[in-house]
Amino acid sequence: MSIITLTTDFGTKDFSVAAVKGAIYHQNRNVTVVDISHEITPYHLYEAAYILNNACFTFPDNTVHIIGIDAERNATIDHLIVKIENQLFIGTDNGIFSLLAKEKEVSAIFKIEQFGAAYELFPTLNVFTSVASFLTKGVHWSKLGTAKPSFKSISALEPTVSESSNQITGKVIYIDHYGNVVTNITKEIFKRFEKERSYVIEARSVKIKEVFSSYSAAVEEELQKEVTSVGKKIAIFNSAGYLELAIYKSNPETTGAANTLFGLQYMDVVKVVFNSN
Amino acid sequence: MSIITLTTDFGTKDFSVAAVKGAIYHQNRNVTVVDISHEITPYHLYEAAYILNNACFTFPDNTVHIIGIDAERNATIDHLIVKIENQLFIGTDNGIFSLLAKEKEVSAIFKIEQFGAAYELFPTLNVFTSVASFLTKGVHWSKLGTAKPSFKSISALEPTVSESSNQITGKVIYIDHYGNVVTNITKEIFKRFEKERSYVIEARSVKIKEVFSSYSAAVEEELQKEVTSVGKKIAIFNSAGYLELAIYKSNPETTGAANTLFGLQYMDVVKVVFNSN
Amino acid sequence: MSIITLTTDFGTKDFSVAAVKGAIYHQNRNVTVVDISHEITPYHLYEAAYILNNACFTFPDNTVHIIGIDAERNATIDHLIVKIENQLFIGTDNGIFSLLAKEKEVSAIFKIEQFGAAYELFPTLNVFTSVASFLTKGVHWSKLGTAKPSFKSISALEPTVSESSNQITGKVIYIDHYGNVVTNITKEIFKRFEKERSYVIEARSVKIKEVFSSYSAAVEEELQKEVTSVGKKIAIFNSAGYLELAIYKSNPETTGAANTLFGLQYMDVVKVVFNSN
Repeated sequence: MSIITLTTDFGTKDFSVAAVKGAIYHQNRNVTVVDISHEITPYHLYEAAYILNNACFTFPDNTVHIIGIDAERNATIDHLIVKIENQLFIGTDNGIFSLLAKEKEVSAIFKIEQFGAAYELFPTLNVFTSVASFLTKGVHWSKLGTAKPSFKSISALEPTVSESSNQITGKVIYIDHYGNVVTNITKEIFKRFEKERSYVIEARSVKIKEVFSSYSAAVEEELQKEVTSVGKKIAIFNSAGYLELAIYKSNPETTGAANTLFGLQYMDVVKVVFNSN
Repeated sequence: MSIITLTTDFGTKDFSVAAVKGAIYHQNRNVTVVDISHEITPYHLYEAAYILNNACFTFPDNTVHIIGIDAERNATIDHLIVKIENQLFIGTDNGIFSLLAKEKEVSAIFKIEQFGAAYELFPTLNVFTSVASFLTKGVHWSKLGTAKPSFKSISALEPTVSESSNQITGKVIYIDHYGNVVTNITKEIFKRFEKERSYVIEARSVKIKEVFSSYSAAVEEELQKEVTSVGKKIAIFNSAGYLELAIYKSNPETTGAANTLFGLQYMDVVKVVFNSN
Repeated sequence: MSIITLTTDFGTKDFSVAAVKGAIYHQNRNVTVVDISHEITPYHLYEAAYILNNACFTFPDNTVHIIGIDAERNATIDHLIVKIENQLFIGTDNGIFSLLAKEKEVSAIFKIEQFGAAYELFPTLNVFTSVASFLTKGVHWSKLGTAKPSFKSISALEPTVSESSNQITGKVIYIDHYGNVVTNITKEIFKRFEKERSYVIEARSVKIKEVFSSYSAAVEEELQKEVTSVGKKIAIFNSAGYLELAIYKSNPETTGAANTLFGLQYMDVVKVVFNSN
């Protein structure tokens, strides 16, 4: 029994998500439909990519992931089936695939033609569910489209690394449910540049001098002294491997959260300045 | 394996939806439960009907749809099983069935009696899950209730058409997740009345002179000129077949959306004025 | 086919819930994953317990319930498998189990050791999904951990009963989706203390003299007189068995709801004062 996942900016109140699920089950009763997220900021490909990248690769091989964001095709934008690592994606060639495929193996890119009208109002329903149903019934993607050499590439949000000024300059790429501030500075870049030097993470007026491996590790000192650590400003590498600025056990609705307390928004600059040895 | 869907105004934080799902799986492990929406505005039958009408008919035949909105029965209001087209509905005779059945075939109306107490605090849990479990186990609805000739009828929100003043007068019936404004003017009524005349759609200070078949079609001119179309005010017939006023690629949280930019709310008037030939 | 449920404070936008579902299906394709709630107020064990207590016991026996709230372990806090009644729970020994087990049978408490790192950033993903997968594949919990005599106990939010002052003093323990105000005064305590006396329920300036068995029962008088009952201030025992202050058919977004109209918040005092006979 295969899995089809859904990632959209449809929200969960409207009829759209349910209509899509109904159409999938109508076409292939032998699948399980799983929601990735329906609360992507409308048309926000970077946000969709961050969420999909960190959710979809935990799924079984050959899971089919429908991406229902900015999904209309037109004369210059195709609908595609793309295989990245062992996962199958169905979406629109708006740049999202380049964000998903970064540093990963792409083994198939196929343009979908024989489903839906040229100007299809709701392609996630009228095109993608049919393609997903065929794929999960065992029809090979090469039967459902024509091979293409590449997909549209849009610039990834990469930090800049300056050896001369001993600095990594990154950006806020996501504010999570707890209000924690996720940057585009990966643990891998950080560690490669760190070379056992001390450092300061700077974002607006915030300065933090240590990155922890977990929330618990960040408050171990307070735990041993038996003082409260709720509200402590910390930096960790989050489970997705990105540098994250957080407030320990914050509640966005009451005590405030990292984004509000630090005054940080999407795309704001976060620097790591290393001391010269 | 049958499907049972849930449409409620319970929200997804409280225990209600999960308690209902647990009870269904407890009574029939051989079904899949699918959410239609749990964010119906409390007690809002018209909103529920709009969402259900556009979601539930994509499901496989004989899917059982539980409607958990305004669900308590009393001396004058029954719990019903209603078959509309090839779908089965379980709900309360508060008028919702007349909204779902409009222009569709109703082949069964049965009053549920042998489940739950007369004053049942949580009938969606204590009545509807049992009925849905029996239906999906293959028990015929005639074994679960007694036939009724009709259900309660409430007035549908229909536009008025004036031949003399060359005008269709409709209303806003739904604001969707993108802030787009859905009217009760169907493509079918519009086209029947249009007769190749030009027209102006008027809603407060907004005047729009063309209805497109898709979002992409609405911005084709800008696409060819390579100018931005984000923020363009457009009218389309949405995928449900209704005249919709929209902002192209709007984001309700940042740039504003059709409802805020046009100043339109639920039940506000939207007119289409046709030019006399 | 077993069921695994998820109760978290992750929200449904981020990648966390989907990553957890993917990992479960990757490890055991032969389960159904069901959401209890992902909108628990961050780190709020009492809220989680209220929701879980009223949702999870409707599920089939041996359903595995993952509790992804405040889930990191450290030197003093373990990950546990706990069997309460016929349900299996996987979570962290932060006090939640004592809230779930109140007045219920606990037949197993096992400390999980062989999964995940000591400082695990995302234990719900990296520990709990593995344990849940083994449990649903039929591996006995005694193979997955070592027996413990007890779990951490935190004080339950109990009302105080004063025979001398003829008074039950409770607290608001939850505000539900409709804005209705749920207290910790159970029907059982109320009825035991009532002894056919009349009473007044007092909360701030609100005074209510009758508790109904359902919303319909609360407005029967208005129904018979054919006057509106929308907006009526009522008290009922809710489906979870707690005294609840409500506004009949209120809409938090338009007309206001019990919590705003009564001015009541989480932990505010609600008294029931009985008349001496």
